[in-house]
Amino acid sequence: MTMQKPSIPKGTRDFSPSEVAKRNYIVQTIRKNFEQFGFQPIETPCFEKTETLMGKYGEEGDRLIFRILDAGDFLSEVPAEVYQSANSAKLAPYISGKALRYDLTVPFARYVVQHQNEISFPFKRYQIQPVWRADRPQKGRYREFYQCDADVVGARGLWQEVEFVQLYDRVFTDLQVKGVTVKMNHRKILSGFAEIIGAPDKLIDFTVALDKLDKIGKEKVEEEMIQRGITPEAIAKIQPVFSLEGDFSQKIAQLKDILSTSPTGLEGIADLEFIYTQTQLLGLQTAALELEVTLARGLNYYTGAIFEVAAPKEVALGSIGGGGRYDELTEIFGLKGMSGIGISFGLDRIYLVLEQLDLFPKTLDNTLDVLCINFGEKEALASFKVIQQLRAKGYRAELYPESTKLKKQLSYADGRQVRYVILIGEEELSNAKAVLKNMLTGEQTSYPIEEIVKAIGEE
Amino acid sequence: MTMQKPSIPKGTRDFSPSEVAKRNYIVQTIRKNFEQFGFQPIETPCFEKTETLMGKYGEEGDRLIFRILDAGDFLSEVPAEVYQSANSAKLAPYISGKALRYDLTVPFARYVVQHQNEISFPFKRYQIQPVWRADRPQKGRYREFYQCDADVVGARGLWQEVEFVQLYDRVFTDLQVKGVTVKMNHRKILSGFAEIIGAPDKLIDFTVALDKLDKIGKEKVEEEMIQRGITPEAIAKIQPVFSLEGDFSQKIAQLKDILSTSPTGLEGIADLEFIYTQTQLLGLQTAALELEVTLARGLNYYTGAIFEVAAPKEVALGSIGGGGRYDELTEIFGLKGMSGIGISFGLDRIYLVLEQLDLFPKTLDNTLDVLCINFGEKEALASFKVIQQLRAKGYRAELYPESTKLKKQLSYADGRQVRYVILIGEEELSNAKAVLKNMLTGEQTSYPIEEIVKAIGEE
Repeated sequence: MTMQKPSIPKGTRDFSPSEVAKRNYIVQTIRKNFEQFGFQPIETPCFEKTETLMGKYGEEGDRLIFRILDAGDFLSEVPAEVYQSANSAKLAPYISGKALRYDLTVPFARYVVQHQNEISFPFKRYQIQPVWRADRPQKGRYREFYQCDADVVGARGLWQEVEFVQLYDRVFTDLQVKGVTVKMNHRKILSGFAEIIGAPDKLIDFTVALDKLDKIGKEKVEEEMIQRGITPEAIAKIQPVFSLEGDFSQKIAQLKDILSTSPTGLEGIADLEFIYTQTQLLGLQTAALELEVTLARGLNYYTGAIFEVAAPKEVALGSIGGGGRYDELTEIFGLKGMSGIGISFGLDRIYLVLEQLDLFPKTLDNTLDVLCINFGEKEALASFKVIQQLRAKGYRAELYPESTKLKKQLSYADGRQVRYVILIGEEELSNAKAVLKNMLTGEQTSYPIEEIVKAIGEE
Repeated sequence: MTMQKPSIPKGTRDFSPSEVAKRNYIVQTIRKNFEQFGFQPIETPCFEKTETLMGKYGEEGDRLIFRILDAGDFLSEVPAEVYQSANSAKLAPYISGKALRYDLTVPFARYVVQHQNEISFPFKRYQIQPVWRADRPQKGRYREFYQCDADVVGARGLWQEVEFVQLYDRVFTDLQVKGVTVKMNHRKILSGFAEIIGAPDKLIDFTVALDKLDKIGKEKVEEEMIQRGITPEAIAKIQPVFSLEGDFSQKIAQLKDILSTSPTGLEGIADLEFIYTQTQLLGLQTAALELEVTLARGLNYYTGAIFEVAAPKEVALGSIGGGGRYDELTEIFGLKGMSGIGISFGLDRIYLVLEQLDLFPKTLDNTLDVLCINFGEKEALASFKVIQQLRAKGYRAELYPESTKLKKQLSYADGRQVRYVILIGEEELSNAKAVLKNMLTGEQTSYPIEEIVKAIGEE
């Protein structure tokens, strides 16, 4: 009988040592900057009570939540009529009281409300943990993936928006990714458009269509707007929006004209103008800041500034991060008046960007500095003493665990991309010597055993 | 209508910034040593196919596995007769094809078999990830908790056992925990006892009873053995085991007598003697190595050396780690002849040890070096420029996000345990000055703005 090779559920991944090293490189860069910007880490459980998550992500989102089957005799509390219906949707609530988190935002809102008396506001938290979605797996989309979020709750000042632009700039500069664009928009500018065309109830229809301007062009967008019940007169009024030109400040000037009769729209413009002006005065290292009125992400919850970060044009990977301000994040759990703003980094996409642009440091795969060859008990003991000294100095060092053929041990050293191999064989031991082999140059040098650690330090 | 405060599922935990800092301190110490000892990280998905996990942990273990409800219409593939049975155990396999991992060992075995062609053996991997068990929650036992495992597969030499003793010693020395005891036993010594008493089939009964020697004393152990079908003659033969005395080497000497007619037992003794001798020659910094013949953990799978690490006696917390050698870890997935050995660190227990002994560094809660007070737009911009310089030098620095009352901002600074506060108010700005307040001493000093970063560096 041959057993079938085991495998993992679709949409999930194993990460090899090399992949973990690359992922950690990105995560550490993000984490370092989160901390330098004053954010503090929290962690929440991987599963929440089902009621905490359900109803927070829209109908589509709810369907993508992985539910956990209750432990033990899970059918014991199902009402007879529910069971007889044999209906999955009706049965689920009775047999699964817990579910895997779908994002980090709702658990964060739950955390803030639950622990409000222990938290001193404004609360700047970051969280880097996996989330799960029962999405159809495809290239770059997984059922288990990490989110890297930073949020501030309990403060309204616009400096936080300025800060997040700086944060994106710093992280991508540290990762050596040039040509990143931070695109901004404002919920109130979109509301202003809806006001101007006299159809505030059509905000979503209008923006969903507008969002496609880049992809399908002006004519098709107008067609779609008409299909969505926006009148040709309204579209005519808003025409200038389709052809905004110039840099951030030039677009601001045009928008001031377009939205001159919408107080809401003008508020949005004032916010963006502040953020842009301060960003100009502070400077950005590698990123660009752009105003993009078609940007309409998270319109369900964002109430102010909206961010989206685009990868460098040459990699064609789309969004690698985003966020925005939401005035009532914690209201869903009963706590009002907590303005919040948050951004996220898309780890998997950023990984692909670095891979495509060949930006991962070459040293990430060097996970072992020194391997000592195992020539037998006495020799191994002498090697082990050297290893103890190396580790005390911070080197990653090990003894090959078995006394086996030299060729096999050296081939292992190659596989691990070891920088140095130390050989203490019978003859060396009897002369209190050790041979140091530099695996890059192939050079071999003999040293007195007690000098070998120093020799490596001086290489 | 007042909403109920949200909460998390029983047996799970939120970790506050302060708790995350403490947990990370332990994890980073373990990780650093894993890497210095040549281990490489892998990560596996949080859920596995149910068939990968089921049947690997015994009946009791299987019951504790959290199953995930299939997405969508999960009832659609349940056979009618199974559904009609309304039996939870029968229904579960048809509606939940995935399950949360129960430990890191089985996923690791699955990983090795699945990726055997990409791995160069011996493979030294570490893995620090959460696991889930539907256990009854109680003090120190959770439904979601982290495991920190290091394993080597594909090598048989005993140096790896020596290495793991060193690793335990290094980690607890780094964590400043003195008085840790690494207890060792050997599966073959236990088998030897069973041989000697002429009841090799009673190995488990014998060891389960023997394991209680410390707790219930010799008489009760003998009673239990008799209840478990071991004859009084057999117990008489094995009497000396109940009263082993002295240090490791003295116990070895006594065991050689007791097991002199058991080749298996003598093999076990030879292994432990080697490990003990090399450990003596290499030395331990703070841990003690003891031989404990009553130790019988993991007898289902361990085939050689068995480890258990006991917390310092004064904290009375029992085991804080353990492991052993298993000759056929990957056989469950069809890959034979892969000897392995692994150990684990118990993060939650170690946390309690450090808490009780007050060993967490006092600086862990310092998550912000500098707070700049926000006095309004122009002043904030000047402060922000200072912050940029501070961050470039590696400081964690932030601007209070709103221009609000000074008292409120300073109270936030206290809450964050900030070391320095920088005040640039209207007057300071007009004179190009900045006031540095040392929050430890309360001292305030005025500097030219361009010298403030340097001043902090020199404090």
